[in-house]
Amino acid sequence: MAYRDSQIAALKDPSNTPSKGVLKITDDQIRESLEGAQLKFQRERGSDVTIFSPRAAGMGHHIGNETTSRHWTEHCNDLIYRVCELYPQNFVSVCQLPQSPGVPIANSISELERCVNQLGFIGCNLNPDPSGGHWTAPPLTDKQWYPFYEKMTELDVPAMIHVSASCNPNFHTTGSHYINADTTAFMQFITADLFKDFPTLRFIIPHGGGAVPYHWGRYRGMAQDLKRPPLDEMIRSNVFFDTCVYHQPGIDLLFKIVPVDNILFGSEMVGAVRGIDPTTGHYYDDTKRYIDKIALSAEDRRKVFEGNARKVYPRLSKL
Amino acid sequence: MAYRDSQIAALKDPSNTPSKGVLKITDDQIRESLEGAQLKFQRERGSDVTIFSPRAAGMGHHIGNETTSRHWTEHCNDLIYRVCELYPQNFVSVCQLPQSPGVPIANSISELERCVNQLGFIGCNLNPDPSGGHWTAPPLTDKQWYPFYEKMTELDVPAMIHVSASCNPNFHTTGSHYINADTTAFMQFITADLFKDFPTLRFIIPHGGGAVPYHWGRYRGMAQDLKRPPLDEMIRSNVFFDTCVYHQPGIDLLFKIVPVDNILFGSEMVGAVRGIDPTTGHYYDDTKRYIDKIALSAEDRRKVFEGNARKVYPRLSKL
Repeated sequence: MAYRDSQIAALKDPSNTPSKGVLKITDDQIRESLEGAQLKFQRERGSDVTIFSPRAAGMGHHIGNETTSRHWTEHCNDLIYRVCELYPQNFVSVCQLPQSPGVPIANSISELERCVNQLGFIGCNLNPDPSGGHWTAPPLTDKQWYPFYEKMTELDVPAMIHVSASCNPNFHTTGSHYINADTTAFMQFITADLFKDFPTLRFIIPHGGGAVPYHWGRYRGMAQDLKRPPLDEMIRSNVFFDTCVYHQPGIDLLFKIVPVDNILFGSEMVGAVRGIDPTTGHYYDDTKRYIDKIALSAEDRRKVFEGNARKVYPRLSKL
Repeated sequence: MAYRDSQIAALKDPSNTPSKGVLKITDDQIRESLEGAQLKFQRERGSDVTIFSPRAAGMGHHIGNETTSRHWTEHCNDLIYRVCELYPQNFVSVCQLPQSPGVPIANSISELERCVNQLGFIGCNLNPDPSGGHWTAPPLTDKQWYPFYEKMTELDVPAMIHVSASCNPNFHTTGSHYINADTTAFMQFITADLFKDFPTLRFIIPHGGGAVPYHWGRYRGMAQDLKRPPLDEMIRSNVFFDTCVYHQPGIDLLFKIVPVDNILFGSEMVGAVRGIDPTTGHYYDDTKRYIDKIALSAEDRRKVFEGNARKVYPRLSKL
């Protein structure tokens, strides 16, 4: 926090030459932070390995310029690397990218390569709106994104599609901007041939797919009206939803609608909703409890909790 | 179409003085258009009265300037008035507003008054994003909207919150822009005291509330974390969802989550999804069929199909 605050403060003085600076966090500070949160919740809730990325809301691609974003991103990814070195049994790393509004996505390739090839990361978070709620980038299906998809394909890593904080007062970051981005990306996929061009490209849409499963009939009908492939076929090898939906009826709907092969266990732990649901007595985001209540075969359960993640993030099995 | 096309074409020549012009549509043309669509579907699907507004996607508030929007809006509302005069048993009118990016909402008051007081309209559609996908207006909870809310309160008319076409290539108009706007508005309401300031203000959020029912746990948890009122309490007299959700599991979720007093029967008829669902053999947007399959008491059924609409649109009962 202190680093980011001073980095942002320095942006206000144009005479400052941006320097990468140093992130002063000791191993003990990392341990202390995790023991009271992610590790505690892993133990309490019964999960083992967490795919760990820099906090999405903290990416802040809209702040400053490309250099600001690059310095911040390298520090964040290095910190995630240290976390995973300290707790190799508990965490596997995914990186943020040095995106910046108006800057070609190709400029993020070197950081993806550094993280995957040098630091052992297994995927990345890709921000469809680096402007933070002004949506000035091209749709994810635009050819401007293709150089990055080529690299993802070559490295065989997936991307979670995830926006960062909103600087548009219309959008609450975790309440609407996140969910809208999920819905937006899915509809973009329906209308283009991205997965014909990249048959092995894989995206995870978080928050249970935004509004998509609830409006599955709408999307099926629109795909049909637009003479696009059926949704099940469109998503099969390319689009996956996580289980970050914080009540039983929502999770029930997700599993009723989305093929089990396309669902990855997830929870924004620690994330958007931190409280305990008074109607259940459990944390809203303790998503394993909801899934445990669904009638799934042992095989399907293994897919959701492990197998699908190994399929989508193949480097997970090579660590 | 011809009127709007020539109005838009005229915008390209700055030497043109904008004139309101004339909409050349005969009563027979109106009858012909409706008989093959809305009236046919009313009969086939078993609904009686439709609350009818100008097509939301056609409002196009981002096109031209305030004068463009005003001329177009007056024509659209006049046309709706004629429809309801021709078929007073079948249609009741709701108006669009002459909104335009950057123009104070107070400038829309006179058209609301004209429609309600002179033409017998019972409500309006309010666009939270007149920019068409750039989201440059203040949030709906901002005091800049208050003069309009005062007039709505005085006239005792509700507003459906509905965006128009998207001119941002990221957002498919009916596939993501509509749904995102619903989700966005709901989250705005959670974070502000709008309904303390206007206890009788009433909004309908279309498309079954966007992503909201699917993520009800998320929104309950966020309201709790933010020390805001519980959602049921927040929406009780002020926020209503329609049933424009085009598959059985989605409608099931809506009725499981949202109090029946806050659900109004609706279908975008004729709207975003026009095809027949091959899995059911019925139109995706024939929403009555889904609701008929839900176990509701006779009283609750009456609320959803009629009573709630009379409560939210009190002028409906005064016609």
